[in-house]
Amino acid sequence: MQTLLLNGDDVDENARMDRVIEAVEGAFAAYERGDAQMPPKSYIDLPEYNGDFRSMPAYMDAGDWDAAGIKWVNVHTDNPDDHDLPTVMGTMIYSDPETAFPLAIMDGTELTMKRTGAAAAVATDHLAVPDASSMGIVGAGVQAYTQLEAIAAVRDIEEVVVSDLDEERVANFIDAFEDRFDVRAGSISEAGHCDVLSTVTPVEDPIVGPDDVGEHTHVNAMGADAEGKHELADDLLLDATVVIDDHAQCTHSGEINVPYAAGVLGDDDVYGEIGEIVVGNRAGRAGARGTGEDGVTGVTVFDSTGLAIQDVAAARVVYEEADDNDNGYPFDLLGLAE
Amino acid sequence: MQTLLLNGDDVDENARMDRVIEAVEGAFAAYERGDAQMPPKSYIDLPEYNGDFRSMPAYMDAGDWDAAGIKWVNVHTDNPDDHDLPTVMGTMIYSDPETAFPLAIMDGTELTMKRTGAAAAVATDHLAVPDASSMGIVGAGVQAYTQLEAIAAVRDIEEVVVSDLDEERVANFIDAFEDRFDVRAGSISEAGHCDVLSTVTPVEDPIVGPDDVGEHTHVNAMGADAEGKHELADDLLLDATVVIDDHAQCTHSGEINVPYAAGVLGDDDVYGEIGEIVVGNRAGRAGARGTGEDGVTGVTVFDSTGLAIQDVAAARVVYEEADDNDNGYPFDLLGLAE
Repeated sequence: MQTLLLNGDDVDENARMDRVIEAVEGAFAAYERGDAQMPPKSYIDLPEYNGDFRSMPAYMDAGDWDAAGIKWVNVHTDNPDDHDLPTVMGTMIYSDPETAFPLAIMDGTELTMKRTGAAAAVATDHLAVPDASSMGIVGAGVQAYTQLEAIAAVRDIEEVVVSDLDEERVANFIDAFEDRFDVRAGSISEAGHCDVLSTVTPVEDPIVGPDDVGEHTHVNAMGADAEGKHELADDLLLDATVVIDDHAQCTHSGEINVPYAAGVLGDDDVYGEIGEIVVGNRAGRAGARGTGEDGVTGVTVFDSTGLAIQDVAAARVVYEEADDNDNGYPFDLLGLAE
Repeated sequence: MQTLLLNGDDVDENARMDRVIEAVEGAFAAYERGDAQMPPKSYIDLPEYNGDFRSMPAYMDAGDWDAAGIKWVNVHTDNPDDHDLPTVMGTMIYSDPETAFPLAIMDGTELTMKRTGAAAAVATDHLAVPDASSMGIVGAGVQAYTQLEAIAAVRDIEEVVVSDLDEERVANFIDAFEDRFDVRAGSISEAGHCDVLSTVTPVEDPIVGPDDVGEHTHVNAMGADAEGKHELADDLLLDATVVIDDHAQCTHSGEINVPYAAGVLGDDDVYGEIGEIVVGNRAGRAGARGTGEDGVTGVTVFDSTGLAIQDVAAARVVYEEADDNDNGYPFDLLGLAE
């Protein structure tokens, strides 16, 4: 019995987006049903290095399958300038819950992008208009690519508008996708008037206002992952149907954390958690998956902070695909092989 | 830049006991000085599999060096019978605190034994009589071996008495050490009348009473690692000078947890934490390392539960030795190699 080692390329190759989306949806459902265990993230703060570590253990039982594991991930802001390393690096240990054997150890950075894209896709599937065909993206960094890949798996996207101050990043993004979509550069407001909008920026001053979105735009607010971060104007949030992934995490470090802390936005302004919609305890968009015509209308916002159960669910898909395809590097870490 | 993979044999080979003892002593000191971060262990309980997972992240700054990492470890009681796997399996990620790069991923099971042995050695160095030459061991399982290896590094042990109901385990233990020590099988009381005694059993009913130890025996109580476990009789504990590794962990799941919960033993019956002795805030044994002739006398007990900082400190030694010796398997987990 060996542990399968999977680097970033292996994760990329084996994170089949349709399966990851299904697994992440299963994770949200398990969490809502009380069939998941997700202890609060533990932080180790290292101000002397302008960084921190986070440990994210989780277990979930999706009914047909269950999965356990832990992601060890950091944010070290000075890494790119001082050490030629990424700001964020993740390592994921994926374990068999029945025996605790570490089935795989994989790059957690690529995994995070996949499961984050998948979360946006789950929310989009339940909250965007059923015939959504246009997608806007604000922020053309690495996460933008996974957002489009994932959302195109749940809606028939034809037209894409990408908005970023960095022209080179916009050009690279267009290059990458112009053979599959009608992609063009545009303003934030042009991106926001698409049927689906994903915002993937690290800003602390909102850059998307109420007039920057269409009448029925579904917004995936992906960028906020720490106290003080905030991409969408308070007025937009207050007028929209706001769905969160987890109350504790979103009020602490998600898109709503700033207005929530200021008392501008309260629990009554939050429609519900994504898991409630997935299991059918709350309606999604009128006419969208699982919801009849009396569902939600108008602008919807999904506040995604990223849950440890998403990592575990996505890691299971990656491990199983890699194992089936004989990808990766088996290693006898624990000395238990014959 | 690659991550060094170290299996159980690599850990065994590179955990140079003198250096691990020094590192673990540094960890206790850093913890006492407030220079360590050790969030409470997170548990995932899986009663359906009769098992659990524990995540143990930590950072410590020993002054000359610092270290960070996480151990992901389990207890699955049915593993040996049902799955031909060990009850406990650990995986350790050892990270550079400055950048968070995962320098090494190693077998955490072997590492746990080494750092546990080292903790007993640190306590023995400060609490056993300076001229201790005999050592008793109750419980001849795998941990017994590391106990003797470690303690022989801090005291000039000549005579060893091993006590276990399983004659085969006793014979194996004697075989392993008879060329280095005068080793023999004996009763619990014979083992307990040595200068140093280590108890490494999983019992819930105490097996070592007050009459089973000598007048100045130092006891390392290593076995208790869960609520309800208890190797030493209450009378022995109440009469002895009791030193713990951590108040929260020992009162929850260490040797003292049962009498503490019953109100038989209170905080006044605990002399202090091992870190206080290491940094010199409390006296150790009269005449032992760092303590003059007015130190502690009589029977001493060290209640060891095992701290995450011990793992991190030991992992640093293993990584550095392995790196120096070109041991292990470099792997480009994060895709950051040239």
